[in-house]
Amino acid sequence: MTRKQIEVCLTPATYDTFKNDEAIVVVVDILRATSAICTAFMNGARKIIPVATLEEAREYKVRGSMVAAERDGIVRDFADFGNSPYNFTPERVKGNDIVYSTTNGTNTIMMASHSFQVLIGSYLNHQALVDHIARENRDLVILCAGWKNKFNLEDTLFAGALAKSLLENDKFETVCDSTYASIDLWELASVNLMQYLEKVAQRHRLKKNKLDDVLEYCHTFNLTGIIPYLEKDYLVPMGSA
Amino acid sequence: MTRKQIEVCLTPATYDTFKNDEAIVVVVDILRATSAICTAFMNGARKIIPVATLEEAREYKVRGSMVAAERDGIVRDFADFGNSPYNFTPERVKGNDIVYSTTNGTNTIMMASHSFQVLIGSYLNHQALVDHIARENRDLVILCAGWKNKFNLEDTLFAGALAKSLLENDKFETVCDSTYASIDLWELASVNLMQYLEKVAQRHRLKKNKLDDVLEYCHTFNLTGIIPYLEKDYLVPMGSA
Repeated sequence: MTRKQIEVCLTPATYDTFKNDEAIVVVVDILRATSAICTAFMNGARKIIPVATLEEAREYKVRGSMVAAERDGIVRDFADFGNSPYNFTPERVKGNDIVYSTTNGTNTIMMASHSFQVLIGSYLNHQALVDHIARENRDLVILCAGWKNKFNLEDTLFAGALAKSLLENDKFETVCDSTYASIDLWELASVNLMQYLEKVAQRHRLKKNKLDDVLEYCHTFNLTGIIPYLEKDYLVPMGSA
Repeated sequence: MTRKQIEVCLTPATYDTFKNDEAIVVVVDILRATSAICTAFMNGARKIIPVATLEEAREYKVRGSMVAAERDGIVRDFADFGNSPYNFTPERVKGNDIVYSTTNGTNTIMMASHSFQVLIGSYLNHQALVDHIARENRDLVILCAGWKNKFNLEDTLFAGALAKSLLENDKFETVCDSTYASIDLWELASVNLMQYLEKVAQRHRLKKNKLDDVLEYCHTFNLTGIIPYLEKDYLVPMGSA
C-alpha cells in the first residue's frame, strides 16, 4: 500500500514548492477568516464569495450583496458587518450569499484552485475534515495563510493538530520537516492552549483593536460538521451543520 | 532603552518581508554549507567565494582557484574536493582562497548583502556570534537557507538556539512568531538532539548518499571563535580560531 503524503506549507510564499494537482488542499486562517467562514455556513449561509480588496467588496455591495468587510477592526461604511465570526449570526446569514473581504485568506484560497479540492479548515470543523480527507484518500497539503506572507503560530498549530489526527490513520505518512515541526508545536501548545497563545502576534494585534474576544471561540473543536469548499471562485458547504 | 528586535526568517522565500538595512543578518545552512565555511576558516582559509552554480565553480577552477563542488554526494570531476566540512582540512585550506559551490547557501548569503552585516552562522561558532551580536547591539535577522525555498528543521533549530542565547541578554526582545516557534522547537529537540534529528529530511538525503557522517560534527557547539562575514561577494574571517 502506498501511503498518502501529508505536507504543511507554512506560508503562501512557499506554496509553489508544494503544488500538487492531485492533492486536497486545506486552507487555514484561524484568526479569523477560516473560522468565520465555517461559522457562516454553520449558521446557514448558502454561498461565500471571498474577495481580496475592499474595492471588490464595495462593488459587490453596490450590486446588492451582503458584505462583511473591515480593516484594522473598523467596519467599513459600505459593509453590512465586520469580519468577526460572531457577526455571522443565523439571523443575518441564513439562506444568504455573503461577500467576505480578507486579504491573506482570499489570495491563499485562490492560489490552491488548481488542486483536486480546496477545503476551508478551522478547529470548528476539525473532525469533519479528518473524516472527509481519510475517505478521499489523497495526498494532503495544509496551507497556512500566515500573516502577510510570514509564518504565524496560530495557523501552524492547527496544521499540527490536523496532521496529527490524520497520521493516526495508517493511510497517511509524512516526510516533511514542516509537518513534524507543526505537530511538535501543537503537542507543546495544546497542554495549555490559551496560555500558549499569549505568544501569538496576531492575538496582540486583535487585542489592540478590541477584537480578541474571538480567541477562545476560534480554538474550539468540532462545532460543525460542515466543510466549506471552493467551487469556481466562491465557497459552498459540504455536509451538514 | 529600546530593545533590539530578533526575528527568524524560516526560508529565503519570505525574506522580502524581513529586509532591514540596519540589521545584522546571520545566514544558517547547518547541513552543510555554513558548517563547512566555518570549518574552512577555523583551519586557516583566507577567503571563501560562494558560488551558486557548477558552471561558475568550473570557471573559477579554470582560472586556477581551489574549488569545493559536488552534487548528490559526488565530487565533480573538475573540483579539488567535495562540500563536506571534513574536506576543509588545514593541509588543504591554510592560507588559500577557496570557491564553495552551494545552491541554497550562496543565494541566501547574497540576498542579505543590503544589510548592515552578513554573518555565517553554525553551531561551531555559536558563542562567538552571541558575543559579537550583543556588542554590535543591532536588530538581528536569522536567515535560514532551508531546502529549495522550503522550511527545514535543522536550520530552524539552530535559529532557536541562537535566538534563545541572545534573548537572555536584556538588550534584545522578540515579537516574532517564527522566533518563538524556533526557540520552542530548539528546547524540545535539545533534550536529545541526535535523536530528534531522526525527523530531519536532509539527514535522510545525506544518509542515502553516505554523507551523514557529518551530522554530529555539524551540531557541535563552539569549536571556533571565528565569524565569517560577507565583504563584497566573498567571505572573510573575523576573530581568531
